[in-house]
Amino acid sequence: MHANLRNYLPILDWGRSYTRATFSGDLIAALIVTIMLVPQSLAYALLAGLPPEAGLYASIAPIILYAIFGTSRALAVGPVAVISLLTAATLGNVVEQLGVGYAVAALTLAFLSGLILLAMGLFRLGFLANFLSHPVIAGFITASGIIIAASQLKHILGVEASGHNLFQLLLSLFQNLDAINWITFALGAGATGFLFWLRKGMKPLLKSMGVSPRMADVATKAGPVAAVVVTTALVWGLGLADRGVRIVGDVPQSLPPLTMPDLSFDVVSALMVPALLISVIGFVESVSVAQTLAAKKRQRIKPDQELIGLGAANLGAAFTGGFPVTGGFSRSVVNFDAGAETPAAGAFTAIGLAIAALALTPLIFFLPQATLAATIIVAVLGLVDFGILKRSWSYSKADFFAVAATILLTLGMGVEVGVTAGVVLSIFLHLYKTTKPHIAEVGLVPGTQHFRNINRHQVETLDHVLTFRIDESLYFANARFLEDYIYDRVAGQSSLKHVILMCSAVNEVDLSALESLEAINERLAALDMQLHLSEVKGPVMDRLQREHFMDDLTGRVFLSQYDAFQALR
Amino acid sequence: MHANLRNYLPILDWGRSYTRATFSGDLIAALIVTIMLVPQSLAYALLAGLPPEAGLYASIAPIILYAIFGTSRALAVGPVAVISLLTAATLGNVVEQLGVGYAVAALTLAFLSGLILLAMGLFRLGFLANFLSHPVIAGFITASGIIIAASQLKHILGVEASGHNLFQLLLSLFQNLDAINWITFALGAGATGFLFWLRKGMKPLLKSMGVSPRMADVATKAGPVAAVVVTTALVWGLGLADRGVRIVGDVPQSLPPLTMPDLSFDVVSALMVPALLISVIGFVESVSVAQTLAAKKRQRIKPDQELIGLGAANLGAAFTGGFPVTGGFSRSVVNFDAGAETPAAGAFTAIGLAIAALALTPLIFFLPQATLAATIIVAVLGLVDFGILKRSWSYSKADFFAVAATILLTLGMGVEVGVTAGVVLSIFLHLYKTTKPHIAEVGLVPGTQHFRNINRHQVETLDHVLTFRIDESLYFANARFLEDYIYDRVAGQSSLKHVILMCSAVNEVDLSALESLEAINERLAALDMQLHLSEVKGPVMDRLQREHFMDDLTGRVFLSQYDAFQALR
Repeated sequence: MHANLRNYLPILDWGRSYTRATFSGDLIAALIVTIMLVPQSLAYALLAGLPPEAGLYASIAPIILYAIFGTSRALAVGPVAVISLLTAATLGNVVEQLGVGYAVAALTLAFLSGLILLAMGLFRLGFLANFLSHPVIAGFITASGIIIAASQLKHILGVEASGHNLFQLLLSLFQNLDAINWITFALGAGATGFLFWLRKGMKPLLKSMGVSPRMADVATKAGPVAAVVVTTALVWGLGLADRGVRIVGDVPQSLPPLTMPDLSFDVVSALMVPALLISVIGFVESVSVAQTLAAKKRQRIKPDQELIGLGAANLGAAFTGGFPVTGGFSRSVVNFDAGAETPAAGAFTAIGLAIAALALTPLIFFLPQATLAATIIVAVLGLVDFGILKRSWSYSKADFFAVAATILLTLGMGVEVGVTAGVVLSIFLHLYKTTKPHIAEVGLVPGTQHFRNINRHQVETLDHVLTFRIDESLYFANARFLEDYIYDRVAGQSSLKHVILMCSAVNEVDLSALESLEAINERLAALDMQLHLSEVKGPVMDRLQREHFMDDLTGRVFLSQYDAFQALR
Repeated sequence: MHANLRNYLPILDWGRSYTRATFSGDLIAALIVTIMLVPQSLAYALLAGLPPEAGLYASIAPIILYAIFGTSRALAVGPVAVISLLTAATLGNVVEQLGVGYAVAALTLAFLSGLILLAMGLFRLGFLANFLSHPVIAGFITASGIIIAASQLKHILGVEASGHNLFQLLLSLFQNLDAINWITFALGAGATGFLFWLRKGMKPLLKSMGVSPRMADVATKAGPVAAVVVTTALVWGLGLADRGVRIVGDVPQSLPPLTMPDLSFDVVSALMVPALLISVIGFVESVSVAQTLAAKKRQRIKPDQELIGLGAANLGAAFTGGFPVTGGFSRSVVNFDAGAETPAAGAFTAIGLAIAALALTPLIFFLPQATLAATIIVAVLGLVDFGILKRSWSYSKADFFAVAATILLTLGMGVEVGVTAGVVLSIFLHLYKTTKPHIAEVGLVPGTQHFRNINRHQVETLDHVLTFRIDESLYFANARFLEDYIYDRVAGQSSLKHVILMCSAVNEVDLSALESLEAINERLAALDMQLHLSEVKGPVMDRLQREHFMDDLTGRVFLSQYDAFQALR
């Protein structure tokens, strides 16, 4: 009972061994992450189309709930770029049709996403995430990064623009280009340039100036805060808000409010499918990050419990003024690098953000939106990597088509269409390959008991025996193909007396395939040929033995292909 | 060029060797089939919700076009039960919404279905039909048979009823039961009873009376015509039409008219998906029949050319007042049994039906609809077979769930939902099985070079070597599972130095799985263990060799598992 409870409440595991040393490690990590998270949270709220404070709220309760239910020791949960983009894409489509408030719809989305994740965790459906292949994820993240960056250009230029795919966005920007606000552009372009330089150029510079690596690292991480402070000061000092520079403005000074998602039938049914997509993508992103970090410390995470942790975090977001959240890459890496030892670091971060929400929001009144946009652009362009196209092209055309379709459709038709098409296409291509399986005619490698393809190796064969190694499980999609293949191969071979199917690669024989085997057996019998099987795997054999196929089989079942070869010699 | 043309026009093949003997065989077959087809064609038109003459028209041009383009020598193309039911289900939903004529929408459906089949044939997409597994087809046909029979009960009872699933139909029948027309019921029940007896009881009776088998056979086949003649005579002689018995009534005396499907955007887009479903199901049914018959004469059919033949037939139906058609089981079997030698038999049948349409329609003015319903009920109940449930339950639970879902959803939610769910579920269950593949730890069978599961066989193993045989292709859906499995198995085994992956059942390694193998290699290296591969198949090896994974691999790639075992001993 107790062990069972600890399975669902990992906090009982690490909580009992909590020491002063882990406490100080966690506290320092929390401080660093808090500083980094303030501008990032505001920025992702803006990306999701929500008021900036929603980003802070979405980082507080979810972090605490994940700390209680999650299994990763370093994962930092909160708004992330791709999920914020998906939220904006979903709500942009739905809100107008339903006549529901945008912020309330975001709560509903978080609530549904939480329920779905929780249900997936309780029913152990974490394996569903495996259907997002690595190349599809890589392609999707690259394309999303480009769309997100494009969507932020309007803030840098100080113009209006909208659209959920790259072409709409660029067209809309282009049409409004005459309204460009040059002061905004100067601030935005300056901040973007500074942040890029921070990533690439500052650390080497500081090191060459003799600054210790540890200090250089802290300075690099504090850089975005410097950009926030400097641009805010400029807007305030020079009165730029009166000259058309958009600012964050009034943000309520408050702890996260208690909120209630809209659970009316219309809203729930309109948001169900997008919520599923957001859940699965969020889960995949989060688990990848958590697994990468856990591997570095030889720890393990439990994917099904992760679902419960992320589900709780999203439910928390739904009732405290947030929007869908998941474990984010950059914040988790910072947390990990800063020395977070346990999920308590997350709880301390939450306290830090709560203080910020309560006390510091007046300080960001004059923060220009262009600075937040610059933060986002620099973060997401780091995710863009077209290398996957080259790699998949050289390794596997099927993977290449899946990733190319994902990228093109995400850019051209939006994130939801893109990722769905990627998943469907990769499943279809995998199935397609199995419909026309590789079948090799094999012979004995001389001096061994091993059999290989007669076209690739020097092997012995017998004139009256034909052995096929079928390189695929036999199931409905290829049962007919096997029949046709064998009929074609044996046609007109009058000296042939035995056909052996070598089943070392046949991991399953379903009912459709069994019926095809029966037909093959019958047809070969009419041609005066015997059908034999060799190297049938245990689980497949167990099943075949329950059927009268085994009685009808004209030939025998041999444990090994070598036995078959010797017996029929 | 000529051979190429013959590929697309099989008539050039059999036409040049046409003799007087094949001519007389074909002619006799055509006569028998024509007699059988007249009531059946009228009945299926009624089932599809169309005027009876549409059934005749749908049997004329399509038969001729199939004779030119099709590859089966015995297949008879025309309206069939399941496709007629699908047509009714589709048009029932769509016609009201679009405000288009029912008959015109049926033409559009046939036109689209023809285009889809033609395109599938030209692009060689016939393999798509393989995704309908045998059990799903069996379940679908059984459930459709029940729905069709239920839909005809209203004609037997002489009441109104409607609905596209079993429960709607039965409820609707029950509600109108007080309006039952007892004369209609007597005619309908009598005809149904007679037709059942014809199937089961008459042949043995005739034989016991000393009638020759050949004559008994002809009499059995002429039976339905007798039912038509007798009930028509009764209605005419006793003036039953005035007492509420529904009759076929006025059928125009005409050759098939030239018609034009409605190709407006709204209609086409509403009918596109149903047309795809009708095409695939029609193709599967037709190909199964054609293959069964071809096998009996050791002939072969070409599935991709069959698509072209059926596509042409449906286009023909669209322009001559018909509705979607395909190769039917009962009519083809009759054609085959009657001795049809070439597709010319089909052409002669078409001439016979054209004569019927032109001259004989006044004779069926008084034919009661109850008789046609009886014809349908007896035909479709012959298709109902729940044996597939028992067989799949004993052989494979996955197949059982797919077939059970197909039957239940077809009965409960209609044919379109049922078959779609069956296909999706069987694909999902197949994929699900591959997400958690069977992995066996193997050892050497003493005295051989053969390796088997240590839990099933007495085998030799080495303490410092662990060999896993992975019984599945490695791809995105199970890449993570493999990683987790191996990490779990090697954890804490300090004496272990070598891990061998025996890849005899690995038919594919996609990019996601390659990345997992790289991670496994790296992780094992950190634990001071070497990773080896054995029995990698040619096509998989070709691909791996293009990657730097082969340079990074800590261990070796062995041709056979026995080589690996000897080398690491």
